[in-house]
Amino acid sequence: MSGKTDAGNFFEDFSLGQTFAHATPRTLGAGEAALYVALTGSRHAIANSGPLAHALGYPARPADELLAFHIAFGKTVADISLNAVANLGYADARFPRPVFLGDTLRAESTVIGLKENRDGEAGVVWVRSTAINQNDRDVMTWVRWVMVKKRDRARAPPPVVVPTLPTHVAARDLAVPGFLDCREFETALTGSAWLWEDYQPGEIIDHPAGMTLDESDHSFATRLYQNPARLHFDARLMRDTAFGRRLVYGGHVISVCRALAHEGLENALLIAAINGGTHCNPTFAGDTLYCRHEVLEKWELPGRDDLGALRLRMLGLKDRAPAELGAPKIDGKYSPHVVLDLDYTVLMPRHH
Amino acid sequence: MSGKTDAGNFFEDFSLGQTFAHATPRTLGAGEAALYVALTGSRHAIANSGPLAHALGYPARPADELLAFHIAFGKTVADISLNAVANLGYADARFPRPVFLGDTLRAESTVIGLKENRDGEAGVVWVRSTAINQNDRDVMTWVRWVMVKKRDRARAPPPVVVPTLPTHVAARDLAVPGFLDCREFETALTGSAWLWEDYQPGEIIDHPAGMTLDESDHSFATRLYQNPARLHFDARLMRDTAFGRRLVYGGHVISVCRALAHEGLENALLIAAINGGTHCNPTFAGDTLYCRHEVLEKWELPGRDDLGALRLRMLGLKDRAPAELGAPKIDGKYSPHVVLDLDYTVLMPRHH
Amino acid sequence: MSGKTDAGNFFEDFSLGQTFAHATPRTLGAGEAALYVALTGSRHAIANSGPLAHALGYPARPADELLAFHIAFGKTVADISLNAVANLGYADARFPRPVFLGDTLRAESTVIGLKENRDGEAGVVWVRSTAINQNDRDVMTWVRWVMVKKRDRARAPPPVVVPTLPTHVAARDLAVPGFLDCREFETALTGSAWLWEDYQPGEIIDHPAGMTLDESDHSFATRLYQNPARLHFDARLMRDTAFGRRLVYGGHVISVCRALAHEGLENALLIAAINGGTHCNPTFAGDTLYCRHEVLEKWELPGRDDLGALRLRMLGLKDRAPAELGAPKIDGKYSPHVVLDLDYTVLMPRHH
Repeated sequence: MSGKTDAGNFFEDFSLGQTFAHATPRTLGAGEAALYVALTGSRHAIANSGPLAHALGYPARPADELLAFHIAFGKTVADISLNAVANLGYADARFPRPVFLGDTLRAESTVIGLKENRDGEAGVVWVRSTAINQNDRDVMTWVRWVMVKKRDRARAPPPVVVPTLPTHVAARDLAVPGFLDCREFETALTGSAWLWEDYQPGEIIDHPAGMTLDESDHSFATRLYQNPARLHFDARLMRDTAFGRRLVYGGHVISVCRALAHEGLENALLIAAINGGTHCNPTFAGDTLYCRHEVLEKWELPGRDDLGALRLRMLGLKDRAPAELGAPKIDGKYSPHVVLDLDYTVLMPRHH
Repeated sequence: MSGKTDAGNFFEDFSLGQTFAHATPRTLGAGEAALYVALTGSRHAIANSGPLAHALGYPARPADELLAFHIAFGKTVADISLNAVANLGYADARFPRPVFLGDTLRAESTVIGLKENRDGEAGVVWVRSTAINQNDRDVMTWVRWVMVKKRDRARAPPPVVVPTLPTHVAARDLAVPGFLDCREFETALTGSAWLWEDYQPGEIIDHPAGMTLDESDHSFATRLYQNPARLHFDARLMRDTAFGRRLVYGGHVISVCRALAHEGLENALLIAAINGGTHCNPTFAGDTLYCRHEVLEKWELPGRDDLGALRLRMLGLKDRAPAELGAPKIDGKYSPHVVLDLDYTVLMPRHH
Repeated sequence: MSGKTDAGNFFEDFSLGQTFAHATPRTLGAGEAALYVALTGSRHAIANSGPLAHALGYPARPADELLAFHIAFGKTVADISLNAVANLGYADARFPRPVFLGDTLRAESTVIGLKENRDGEAGVVWVRSTAINQNDRDVMTWVRWVMVKKRDRARAPPPVVVPTLPTHVAARDLAVPGFLDCREFETALTGSAWLWEDYQPGEIIDHPAGMTLDESDHSFATRLYQNPARLHFDARLMRDTAFGRRLVYGGHVISVCRALAHEGLENALLIAAINGGTHCNPTFAGDTLYCRHEVLEKWELPGRDDLGALRLRMLGLKDRAPAELGAPKIDGKYSPHVVLDLDYTVLMPRHH
């Protein structure tokens, strides 16, 4: 039998400071952009219109931030999470430069934390990953942590290192493209007159639309992102698990929720940071997704009177519209209808 | 609770002459064109081949007319038909200029008719919509009318205004691109030697192929067109309706029928007008679509000896091949197997 | 009733030396490339990255060879195999020139063999087909043979001509692009350090990943390829056959297996030939595909020290992982879990 295939890395294969240059570089263009719309129904203005992007100062039409993120994220899976038991969280995701249609992305990761479970069966690995474009410039960077199986229970655990992670990306650290100019932003183009001044911390937005997922929806998405995690594709493998069936890639849930949230957040032009996030419950084909947002904080941006930042909490729900939800958590435990709890920051034009 | 989301317009929100500049502009390119083929199997020659389009005089590769129509139509839904009980009809759809891959479309609408139902629960709204490209030139215009719910039954009805609509776009009003030159059209490229002279009014064409629709087919299509009508996406919402499940967007039915009709209408190069149309019965995932055409009229075109027009009637059928159908209407009522009755006009090369 | 539709060619419609110029030319670009990834999850390096292709000498980003093949193949169906009872085999498929994104393909075929069945109900037709780009240069050529129904059992059989076909394309006949230069190939880009020297005849590679197919997966693929064979689309038609349901297009099976085989054949950069192939059993939605490879032969290439060729046998499996398979054939008959047995040749960089 050949040794050409790779079973992926197990917990004991990771060491602090270890780096990975992930395969395979990917050119992301007009085809990926159209598919992203077909998969999510996204109507976000800048990624959907070259002339609109141009009018706001963009030198070229950008890719949706989540499309680019999922593609970069997919590259890390073969090295980092092929043997993951659970994706535990995201933090400190930043978008230092836009990804333009036609760009080619590759990804790298560094191990920044390790902690073996008490039972010696698995451990948590923290990595910082970075997506890099064809000009060797960073376009995204994020931390995630996953619980990864051990190959050999008898191996001694590594020293425990748990990285200190920020609760959120501070306003001063948000990357705002220098060319972006929203002083003449036209709300008619997005269909909503609500701008940064109009949203207040504590405000709840229940988005009215729902979307039922089918198997082909999420498997098309996950293949487009070249994410090779088998639990999204192999129904036979999954039949013998507690889930009993294919799991929907959590990134697809984020993207569908972002698209559903267009009605109520039409002018949330750009995602500037993902502060943290949890996939609280599994999502399967047949589930109907809904979305609620809460405004957590609002910030002015240094040197900008055309744009402000909103820190938002996105709750992804399944089989309950927001109005039907009740409390998202009961006794500190998520309702089985909450599938996503994401803390992120958007840029929104200000009134002028 | 936030007032940021919009419940859409109800009947009493419309007034005669009212205009809407619909969100969001959309760039339509090679990705959308490829998806249109993947969704429908369309083999129509001009949209499928840049060099063929160029040989016929096109300065660039055009988008399929229906792809562009569905994208422009989708933009009108949030303002016009989010609270529609029924899409009652289309009329007077024209295509004054081609849409080229890379163009960016936006849409506007004007209310041209209003008539409240006798029961005061809803009313019919007629709108003329126009799609406009990035150079501010009209590329499509059409009338549709929808029955929209009232928010408040007690509101007094508006004056009744029912627009006069043409039965069909007259031959002299058909937009034929000035650059289009079919004098050296090669039928080998489309696979059929039948040209304009060969089709006769009264002729019936039963297209042999059928296509079974799956949920992902129509939901991908409708998301690609950014049509936010919830009845296409939310199976939970639809479970409690008379339909019991998600409805297939009628535009997808038109496109599938147009693609199935390639076998028998290979040289119907361009759609020059949609004269009228009705979605006679609902279409659901699992239905198998078939198509029949009837030639209604044929017209010479002023100043053109390379092209003629055919006015066609497209019948979309479900779960009955054309040969099995029998009469499409019995006692003036459509057979439950007829889902589409569309009157439209195509351009076809003439023998030379 | 109109005679405008075509029932396709029957066995007696074919004659030795007969040629077909198939409809319709197709421009294949960034949209098709993105869809190919979304349909298969393909991570093959050259087609996925413009800069990587450029670094290896490509003047432009190429299309995946199988994407181009399926599109060209699809063009032949209406003329050759609309009335096929069975697709019996492929042979001698070569790829004389790359297909670049933006190219436009058409296809031609010549009948090179005919043999009526003893029962007079059908016959085998051998055709050599060629795909040609917009510059009138051959980009692919292949032989296939299909069993086609007779329209009229009483028609006298044609003289039997069975073409002599090579068992495989010889190493000296493999088209290796002159511009391709793998002397500085970086294995970090593909994620595997195994190169041509590391693979040995007789070696077996069991690829670990599986992929469950859904109806929309294969029907999207087959529509993208504009393959009009009805047995892939019309569930009603298929209900009355021995299969009872829609058949998955065999080309989609090949592409999924090639994508699954990325783990273990990461550096199989290009398909240089398809020597022969059989679809051993039908594939349906719901089946989970797996893949095994066997290395049949390895060849140096004349004048090249940067690249070698591997002749491979790809076994496509359904509902059995390779480790579960046992013998692919028992008493000369394929296991019902083997759906594909493909003999093909790839180019792989050599160590430097």
